[in-house]
Amino acid sequence: MKVLLVFAHPESRSLSGALRDVAIKELEAQGHEVRVSDLYADGWKSAVDRADFPLLADDARFIPVAASKKGFEADTLTGDVKAEIEKLLWADTLILQFPLWWFAMPAILKGWVDRVFAYGFAYGVGEHSDQRWGDRYGEGTLAGKRAMLIVTAGGWEEHYTARGINGPMDDLLFPINHGILYYPGYDVLPPFVVYKVDRLEDAGFGPVAELLRDRMRTLATTPPIPYRRQNGGDYVIPSMNLRPELGDPSAAGFALHSSRAGDAG
Amino acid sequence: MKVLLVFAHPESRSLSGALRDVAIKELEAQGHEVRVSDLYADGWKSAVDRADFPLLADDARFIPVAASKKGFEADTLTGDVKAEIEKLLWADTLILQFPLWWFAMPAILKGWVDRVFAYGFAYGVGEHSDQRWGDRYGEGTLAGKRAMLIVTAGGWEEHYTARGINGPMDDLLFPINHGILYYPGYDVLPPFVVYKVDRLEDAGFGPVAELLRDRMRTLATTPPIPYRRQNGGDYVIPSMNLRPELGDPSAAGFALHSSRAGDAG
Repeated sequence: MKVLLVFAHPESRSLSGALRDVAIKELEAQGHEVRVSDLYADGWKSAVDRADFPLLADDARFIPVAASKKGFEADTLTGDVKAEIEKLLWADTLILQFPLWWFAMPAILKGWVDRVFAYGFAYGVGEHSDQRWGDRYGEGTLAGKRAMLIVTAGGWEEHYTARGINGPMDDLLFPINHGILYYPGYDVLPPFVVYKVDRLEDAGFGPVAELLRDRMRTLATTPPIPYRRQNGGDYVIPSMNLRPELGDPSAAGFALHSSRAGDAG
Repeated sequence: MKVLLVFAHPESRSLSGALRDVAIKELEAQGHEVRVSDLYADGWKSAVDRADFPLLADDARFIPVAASKKGFEADTLTGDVKAEIEKLLWADTLILQFPLWWFAMPAILKGWVDRVFAYGFAYGVGEHSDQRWGDRYGEGTLAGKRAMLIVTAGGWEEHYTARGINGPMDDLLFPINHGILYYPGYDVLPPFVVYKVDRLEDAGFGPVAELLRDRMRTLATTPPIPYRRQNGGDYVIPSMNLRPELGDPSAAGFALHSSRAGDAG
């Protein structure tokens, strides 16, 4: 396999850095090719702005979606963005590794998504009709590839459970797993989450590293989260609402969009 | 009232820019004082890195939480961060205005949160005991103040409803409303969300602007989202799980953390 690992922690000598090295080493031991985008080391530019779109005239109104479309079509996106797109096309598996800051990814990684996931590449793909609403949510440029998150959190696991005050971790990660990764086509594997990282003693690192090694060994075989395909018949077009007969009647919100239990028929 | 509006769109001549101006004008017409942090215009630095913490020795391992704590306590955070903290303390109402990019805030705004919400200021506040788990979720430095989001989205409102494929907008915004704003103490007002912004014709702007004016006129009186206070007795300490008898039995995930219906007693 070809694996791209996007790393978004500012300190290599951190638990995150150690876990990254564990993951890379295990992947290479399995014979996989690994490339790393180390956003801090690369000085990744986070903000989408006019400088991203050389075709844009100085006095033109900047419309990010339109500029992204034009830039991708004309192959005039900036070199750093084009290099990341090339890596995404090269890899058959994408890993995003980051510390959870304020219940979301760090700005530098959000800026990687905002800039690299161009119109025509990661969104704005495919035709709209009575049967299809573009190629997204399980279809798209990156379909057939796998993606997963490696997340380090300072808080307690209990605080992220179904009734925990922070909200369930799966829900907090839904905008990333479903909205950023499944959207352009990835099959999304369950995330690897480490909790209480600031209090993880040396003795605690070994077991966590072993769990991560196991996830790296099973990257190709782990069943993805069973998100529903947009164009597979589960959604009414164009409202894109889940058909009334589908979904656990007691489920609400994000949980509806996985086809686990409760579907009639 | 004193209102701080944090604006995170790269183009002033955008729908977002026009709505910002509508909001400011109406607030000033009501006699309120308004300050604006225009992150793109200010060239806001997004990434948390070593440069944020002048006290950190060149060869020291960079631990963001520890560096933030030390920097805030010693009053050595960088000038741009200190200026924002001063504005947050000045304002009794905070408005974050941004386009929804990939179901979350743009990187530049996430970078504002990551850098300005320092340890000792927005988190790491208060003592832990059998009765309290720090001052957060309804308590903290910013308690007694109000906050709200102004969000512009390209997609259709139907796609963001309870059964819509993108997930419910209230859930997508929960990590921000609950995790970023309620956490340090703000009373969080329901968000003002505009959909299909790329297709909003001139004729459509007037009604949207009028709705926004109304929200600006009622900023002081709109009831906040009834999130549950962490230390008010609804959660078990230290697991911070919602007490078993609380919450609509059919509710799951984020919805549990508002005290709307379904509570026994």
